[in-house]
Amino acid sequence: MTAEIFPKVKTIDLRKKHIGPSCKVFFSHDPIKIVRAKGQYMYDENGVRYLDCINNVAHVGHSHPMVVKAGAEQMELLNTNSRFLHDNLVQYAQRLQATLPEKLSVCYFVNSGSEANDLALRLAWEYTGHKDVITLDNAYHGHVSSLINISPYKFHQLANAEQSKSVHVALSPDLYRGNYRQDHPDPATAYADDVNNLIQKAHEKGHKVAAFIAESLQSCGGQVIPPAGYFQKVAQHVHRAGGLFIADEVQVGFGRVGTHFWAFQLQGEDFVPDIVTMGKPIGNGHPMSCVVTTREVAEAFKNSGMEYFNTFGGNPVSCAIGLAVLDVIEKEDLQGNALRVGGYLTRLLEQQKEKHPLVGDIRGRGLFVGAELVRDRVKLTPATAEAQDIIYKLKEQHILLSADGPHRNVLKFKPPMCFSEEDADMVVEKIDQILTVSETTSFFLLSIIQNTCSVMSL
Amino acid sequence: MTAEIFPKVKTIDLRKKHIGPSCKVFFSHDPIKIVRAKGQYMYDENGVRYLDCINNVAHVGHSHPMVVKAGAEQMELLNTNSRFLHDNLVQYAQRLQATLPEKLSVCYFVNSGSEANDLALRLAWEYTGHKDVITLDNAYHGHVSSLINISPYKFHQLANAEQSKSVHVALSPDLYRGNYRQDHPDPATAYADDVNNLIQKAHEKGHKVAAFIAESLQSCGGQVIPPAGYFQKVAQHVHRAGGLFIADEVQVGFGRVGTHFWAFQLQGEDFVPDIVTMGKPIGNGHPMSCVVTTREVAEAFKNSGMEYFNTFGGNPVSCAIGLAVLDVIEKEDLQGNALRVGGYLTRLLEQQKEKHPLVGDIRGRGLFVGAELVRDRVKLTPATAEAQDIIYKLKEQHILLSADGPHRNVLKFKPPMCFSEEDADMVVEKIDQILTVSETTSFFLLSIIQNTCSVMSL
Ligand SMILES: Cc1ncc(COP(=O)(O)O)c(C=O)c1O
Ligand SMILES: Cc1ncc(COP(=O)(O)O)c(C=O)c1O
Repeated sequence: MTAEIFPKVKTIDLRKKHIGPSCKVFFSHDPIKIVRAKGQYMYDENGVRYLDCINNVAHVGHSHPMVVKAGAEQMELLNTNSRFLHDNLVQYAQRLQATLPEKLSVCYFVNSGSEANDLALRLAWEYTGHKDVITLDNAYHGHVSSLINISPYKFHQLANAEQSKSVHVALSPDLYRGNYRQDHPDPATAYADDVNNLIQKAHEKGHKVAAFIAESLQSCGGQVIPPAGYFQKVAQHVHRAGGLFIADEVQVGFGRVGTHFWAFQLQGEDFVPDIVTMGKPIGNGHPMSCVVTTREVAEAFKNSGMEYFNTFGGNPVSCAIGLAVLDVIEKEDLQGNALRVGGYLTRLLEQQKEKHPLVGDIRGRGLFVGAELVRDRVKLTPATAEAQDIIYKLKEQHILLSADGPHRNVLKFKPPMCFSEEDADMVVEKIDQILTVSETTSFFLLSIIQNTCSVMSL
Repeated sequence: MTAEIFPKVKTIDLRKKHIGPSCKVFFSHDPIKIVRAKGQYMYDENGVRYLDCINNVAHVGHSHPMVVKAGAEQMELLNTNSRFLHDNLVQYAQRLQATLPEKLSVCYFVNSGSEANDLALRLAWEYTGHKDVITLDNAYHGHVSSLINISPYKFHQLANAEQSKSVHVALSPDLYRGNYRQDHPDPATAYADDVNNLIQKAHEKGHKVAAFIAESLQSCGGQVIPPAGYFQKVAQHVHRAGGLFIADEVQVGFGRVGTHFWAFQLQGEDFVPDIVTMGKPIGNGHPMSCVVTTREVAEAFKNSGMEYFNTFGGNPVSCAIGLAVLDVIEKEDLQGNALRVGGYLTRLLEQQKEKHPLVGDIRGRGLFVGAELVRDRVKLTPATAEAQDIIYKLKEQHILLSADGPHRNVLKFKPPMCFSEEDADMVVEKIDQILTVSETTSFFLLSIIQNTCSVMSL
C-alpha cells in the first residue's frame, strides 16, 4: 500500500495553486483521490475500492503486470528517438498493420490522440492540396488548436465561438435524437446526403474538401452508432470531391466493439478509411498514439519535402508497451470478453429501459454502451440533472460512471476490457435501485407539491 | 545483452514498408541500430560503443536507474488521468514551480514539446484576444500544424511554402552571421527594434500581436545565443502591443546552460517570460512536457469557458519520472557538471578555432555548444559538406555528433549532462585529427588538380 504524500485537503489546495484551472476533476463537489488500481478496480487513499466503468484507457486492466514488465524492462535497456533503427518500432508497426486492411500499411507514431488527428489533417491537406474539413456535430477530436476548430463539442463551449470558414459541420448520424431516426426508411443515405450537400456548398464558395473526419462510433458526442453503410456512402461523396476519409479510433479501437478489432469494420468489409488514428487504449495509459495510412498518402506527404520528426513518438519503450498490450488482448481474449460481457450488459440495461421510463435508449457494441436518459420518451427532453444525480449516487456506492453527449444525459459505459458479468450485474443493480428510489421520491415530492397547491388554493 | 529480433537488413526493410517515409534516420547512408544505452554511451547490435554528444533528451544519462525505478514502481501502482486527485501531480508542479520566478506558478502537463507550444499559443490567443505571432528566423517549435506555421526552419523546406498572414518572422539575434554582429555597438537593441518594426507593420495592417515566441537559445536554428538584454527589450515592445512573451525551453532548460536552471535566466534577473514551455529532457525520454504561466493568463484561459483535457498529460507515472529527473539533477549536481565540462569543452574547441581555419565560431553556455564551420572567415561561406563529412567520419570512430542551423554547418553539442572532460577530450581530439587530415588531403587534392591542369594546358 502507498502512503499518501499529502492529506487530501492539501492535495486539493496545491492543485488549486499550481494546476491550470481549466483542468477539471471528476466529481468537482467532492473529488476522489486514487492511489492505486488493478484490473477494473481503483482504490482511494483509505483503501476504498471503486468499480471502474469509465477508464477505457486502462484497456487491458489497470497496471497489467505484462504491460508494466515490458515497459520497465525496455526503460532499463534503452529509450531513445526513432532516428536510430530499432526492432521494437518495426515489429510493432508490423503487428498493428496485421490487424488492419492491407492497404493501411504505413504508420506514424506520436504521443497522443491530438497529435495523431493533427497529423491526419496534415496528411490530408498535403495529399489533396485542399483545405476544408467536414466534421460531425458534437464531435471531439482533441485539444490542439487545429482540432478545437473541428470539434463542435469544444467550440460550442466558447462564449464567442467563431467557426472557421474551412470547417463544415455535418449532422451527427444519431438514430435516436438526430434528424433521421429509426423510423426513417434509409437513414444511412439521408445522413450521407447531408455530407454531400456540405461538399456542394463548399464548392459553390470555391472551397475544396481535404477530408471528412469522424469517430467510427461517436463517444463524447453521446455514444452514437452510425447506421451501417453510412461510411461507404460518405466515402464515395468525399472521394469524388478529391478528399480523404479519416476514421478516429482513439476511443473505440483495439477490440472494444467485440465483433471486430476496429470499430470502422462494423460498417462492413467493403469500407476502408484512408487514414486511421489511434490513441488512448494503445498503451494502457502510457502516452502513445498512431496514425496509419496508405502508401499513396504517405508518399505525397514525403514529397512535400518536409521531414516529420516527433521527439518521443515511436521510442522503444512506447513500442514495447504497445506490443505487450496487443499480446494481452490476444492472450486473455479481451475482444471476446468485450463481446460477451458487453452483450450481457446491454441486455441488462434493456431490461432497465422496460422498467424505468427515464431510460429512453440503450445502444452499444461490445463494451462501448450508452444509456440515454429522457424525461419524456416522445419529446426526448434530456434528463441532464437526473444523469448527474445518478453519477453522484453511484459514486457514493463506489462505482465510477460518467454522463456525456451534447446534453450530458447519456450514461457512458467504457470500462477496462476485463470487466465481468458480475461487474455488469453490480452496476445495473445499483442503477435500478437509484431509479426505483428516485421514482418513488419524485412521486412523493410531486404529491407534496400537489397537496401544498390544493391547500394554498383553498 | 539483448538479442536482436531481426537482422539489421530486415529492420531496414520493415521500416521502409511500415514507417512513414518522412521520418528520417540518422546517417541515412548507413543508419545505426542501437540496442542499449547507459549514461553518455549507446551500444549497437554488435556491442560497439558510441559516445553520445547529441541526445539532450537523455538528460541525466541514458536509462538512469533512479528514473527507471521511479517509472516502473509507479506503473505497477497506478497510471491514470488527471481528473482524479493525485499527489505526484501536485508535488511535481510544486517542485517545478520552485525552480522558476514566483509569478510563473500555474502548470499544464502535456505530452510533447509540440503540445506545449500549441497550448502556449492558445493561452496567448485567449488572454490577449489577438491573433498574430512573431517568431524568429530559422526557429523550430514543433510538428503540429499551428507550429509548422511559426517554424521557418520547417516551412522553408516546403516547395510551395505559403507563410500565414498572421505570422511575422523577426531577425535571428545571431551575433556571428546575423544582420547585427559582434562589432555592432548595441545588437540587443537593434534586434529588438526589428521586432518592434514588425509590430508596427502588423498594426498598420490592422493586425494585433498575441505573442512573441523564441527559444531562450536557438537550437536547430544554429546554436544561437542572443545578446543579454535582448529579451527584456523585446518584452517591452510586445507588452506595449498587448502581447505575451513565450520562452521555449524545450531543448535548453533543466540546467543545461550550467549557470542557471533555465536558459532565459541568462538574460538577467529582471527578465521573466509570461509563458515557459518545457519538454525533451523533462522525463529523460518519457513522453511528457509542461507549460507554465502566470495566474492572470491561466484565469483568462479558464474564463473562455472551455475545459482543457489532455488524456495522458500529468499522469502519475509521468510525474513520478519528472520528480526523479529533478532529484538526479540535484543529487549528481548535473547543472554544475554542465558548467564545468561545458566550459572545458568550449575552451578545447576555441583551441581548434585557432588551429583550423574551417572553424569560424565557437559559442556555448554549459553543455549547449555550437561550432560553426566556414570556408572563408570573412565571407562566412558555410562549410556544409565539410560538416557532413566530419559527422560521418566521427561516426566511423563511434562518436555521435550532428550538424544543424539554416546551412547545416554548425556542429551541435548537446550531450547527456553526465558528459565528462575525458569525453570532451576524446571528441575534440578526433575532430582535430579529421580536420588535420582533411586539410592536408585538400592541399593534396588541390595540388593534384593544379598538376592535372598544368598537364592539360600543355
Ligand atoms: C475521439 C477522440 N479523439 C481524440 C482525442 C484526443 O486524445 P488526447 O487527449 O490523447 O490528445 C480524444 C480524447 O478524449 C478523443 O476522445
Ligand atoms: C525548440 C523546440 N521546441 C519544440 C519542439 C517540439 O518537441 P516535440 O518533438 O517533443 O513535439 C522541439 C523538438 O525538436 C524543439 O527543438
